[in-house]
Amino acid sequence: MRLSDIADMGLPAGTKGIPLDGSILRVGDLADRGLNLLRGDLPVPVAVLKSSALDNNLRVMQAYVERAGVELAPHAKTTMCPQLFARQLSHGSWGLSVATMTQFKLCHDIGVSRLILANQLVGRAEITGLARLWAQTPQRAYYVLVDSLAGAKAISDGFGQCSGAPPARLLIEAGMAQGRCGVRTLEEGLALARAIASLPHVELHGVEAYEGLIVSDQADRDTAAVSAYLQTVLRLYEALAADNLFADPDQVILSAGGSAYYDLVAHVLSARPRGVVLVLRSGCYVTHDSGFYRRLLAHIQHRALEGPAPRLVPALEVWSRVISRPQPDQAIVLMGKRDVSYDIDLPTARWWFREGRHDAPQSIEGLAVGKLNDQHGYLAVPAQADLAVGDLLGFEISHPCTTFDKWSLLLEVDDDYTVVGGLKTFF
Amino acid sequence: MRLSDIADMGLPAGTKGIPLDGSILRVGDLADRGLNLLRGDLPVPVAVLKSSALDNNLRVMQAYVERAGVELAPHAKTTMCPQLFARQLSHGSWGLSVATMTQFKLCHDIGVSRLILANQLVGRAEITGLARLWAQTPQRAYYVLVDSLAGAKAISDGFGQCSGAPPARLLIEAGMAQGRCGVRTLEEGLALARAIASLPHVELHGVEAYEGLIVSDQADRDTAAVSAYLQTVLRLYEALAADNLFADPDQVILSAGGSAYYDLVAHVLSARPRGVVLVLRSGCYVTHDSGFYRRLLAHIQHRALEGPAPRLVPALEVWSRVISRPQPDQAIVLMGKRDVSYDIDLPTARWWFREGRHDAPQSIEGLAVGKLNDQHGYLAVPAQADLAVGDLLGFEISHPCTTFDKWSLLLEVDDDYTVVGGLKTFF
Repeated sequence: MRLSDIADMGLPAGTKGIPLDGSILRVGDLADRGLNLLRGDLPVPVAVLKSSALDNNLRVMQAYVERAGVELAPHAKTTMCPQLFARQLSHGSWGLSVATMTQFKLCHDIGVSRLILANQLVGRAEITGLARLWAQTPQRAYYVLVDSLAGAKAISDGFGQCSGAPPARLLIEAGMAQGRCGVRTLEEGLALARAIASLPHVELHGVEAYEGLIVSDQADRDTAAVSAYLQTVLRLYEALAADNLFADPDQVILSAGGSAYYDLVAHVLSARPRGVVLVLRSGCYVTHDSGFYRRLLAHIQHRALEGPAPRLVPALEVWSRVISRPQPDQAIVLMGKRDVSYDIDLPTARWWFREGRHDAPQSIEGLAVGKLNDQHGYLAVPAQADLAVGDLLGFEISHPCTTFDKWSLLLEVDDDYTVVGGLKTFF
Repeated sequence: MRLSDIADMGLPAGTKGIPLDGSILRVGDLADRGLNLLRGDLPVPVAVLKSSALDNNLRVMQAYVERAGVELAPHAKTTMCPQLFARQLSHGSWGLSVATMTQFKLCHDIGVSRLILANQLVGRAEITGLARLWAQTPQRAYYVLVDSLAGAKAISDGFGQCSGAPPARLLIEAGMAQGRCGVRTLEEGLALARAIASLPHVELHGVEAYEGLIVSDQADRDTAAVSAYLQTVLRLYEALAADNLFADPDQVILSAGGSAYYDLVAHVLSARPRGVVLVLRSGCYVTHDSGFYRRLLAHIQHRALEGPAPRLVPALEVWSRVISRPQPDQAIVLMGKRDVSYDIDLPTARWWFREGRHDAPQSIEGLAVGKLNDQHGYLAVPAQADLAVGDLLGFEISHPCTTFDKWSLLLEVDDDYTVVGGLKTFF
């Protein structure tokens, strides 16, 4: 698959958000038809991305990483949208990150030249799959994680069976006690690196870490814990470098940084020597959100470690209609667990629009969804609320990843909610 | 789109579960290639449906509804898989149910002759969309819900603007206090029915209800509440019939019944007169599960109202690998919120398989996932557990709907986990 194939891809019946009249059959059909959400052209629920917000976020994040002197390999898993990947890369991203070999395959196919499988590479199909893909494009820079000797040996064996593949480039994943994957101590990491040095078909190219799991309701404590963890990552890098364990000492990869603490990563790991490439992997910045990441961005602003925080704005909204006002204090909307994130916060109605009465969406505050069924959302409203069957509501979301994966297509809109294009996802 | 088009549909990179080597490009390619999950042919995570379990569930559920003398319009929203819809219809289902007009469009396109939009029909695009589709196939029996005069008027207006469409067939949704959509009292329902009688382009054809929201941890209390609610539905039907408000008194539709209380629905509404078609809308029976619906089926067995409960067996499993054993009491699997339901229960490992050691999956008990990130699952294990990096684990799920919507393709497998075909979903 190539990026240019997407415009011709079919949008079968069942694709949420596209008109029911059969006028939109391919992704490319969505551009320049003048379809407008507020005019009622689209069946709801529908997920939209505001073009102006995407542009802003791409720009301000790239400016931020350039000022901080680090690279960005946006996590592709957030959107799984090659059209957005292309914009991230054209804005200056170093490469992309992925979580699985299936995601890797998508990025490989569309021609991304630097990829980090920011996860353990495990499984025969996955290891030989990577080796064969890489043999097609040996000039590309692909990196995968390892945290055990068994894992390193399996990769070594798999790559040994595939002629034409370059040696696998490994990054040792540095974990934390009670964390996720990753070596738990410096000694473990050093022993693993020495073992890797003795294996054929694999090379050690760096150290990887993920600090984004440290989130509690006490930001100061989290900041301290993340900083301490990143110090252990730096110590591991230094120990491996001192022991001359990197295959290419002039081009070592150090990678950390989700969307919560990229400022801390840049700050703590600024102690790295020249020649070490520090790669952040933030994924959610491109759409930002109005919940979880808005709160975390406020902490980045407060810390002000690497200059001012990027001024990200929420791009992703899910719109639907009130389908019932069954009793005075209730409104039911056609939007459920199938349509919107619910793993961190429930969505909140941010915009209200009634055709024939409003010229533009009306800003509203504090109308949170109280409960979601599979296909319905429940709003508790004041008994005299002027909210009628048929009214459109635009919802803000928290946690882009778990909203994106509910849509095979999102609609890109201008500030007037006119559709300017379709953004296809590949989950 | 026709059912026969699905075999030729492309499986783009990014489709979870298909081999990375590019050998599977279309849905139809998955049949008869001999791909085997246990042999490591498939990248994980992968969602599988056991063919034998699907066959069993289709058969025993149809036998159950026939014995109970009711019809079944399986809820299409559960699977959104036309290949499964076709099997449900060929086993004798009366029609299908859907939750949105986008889902309706899919079922219309593949030729389903009886459809219930088991939801309020609201929105200009949706109402005129239905009218235009129906004008193409006026002989079909389509039904939609209404619970307000505003809703009925909007449908009347929309159908009036579309020449060639039959009158819209409305079912009044009978709700409950603090419930979801639906009229709250008999008087409200009666007033709405009288108003519908005065509107052009709409006809009243029945009464609809949904009792499945009544689920607590006290089954006896739930049974009583569901029975009482269903009695109010019957009373509303009787009042409307007594007032001669149905457009076709010899063919009135009475519909209720999700996958939790279809026995109670059949039992309480068995008091309906001849000529009233009682249509259940269970969706989850086709795959069943190992959590929420297993518990509810035990209550159906216990109540034994309409003969023995159908012997449903779980068909849906998500398989993945242990990718890290970072500390003795932890195992991390490559399976997260993107892959498996987490809205009611977290998944539980049910099968363990190590290539080279096991001939078949080993049954294991009580290894529940403790936490999910987007792409990872955490298992707390005994410190000496013989669970290694690379081992396959097969997970049971709870709530099929929220697992299905995470997969654009599920793999149908035989009892040895050899792939016999691909099942495409349309979310």
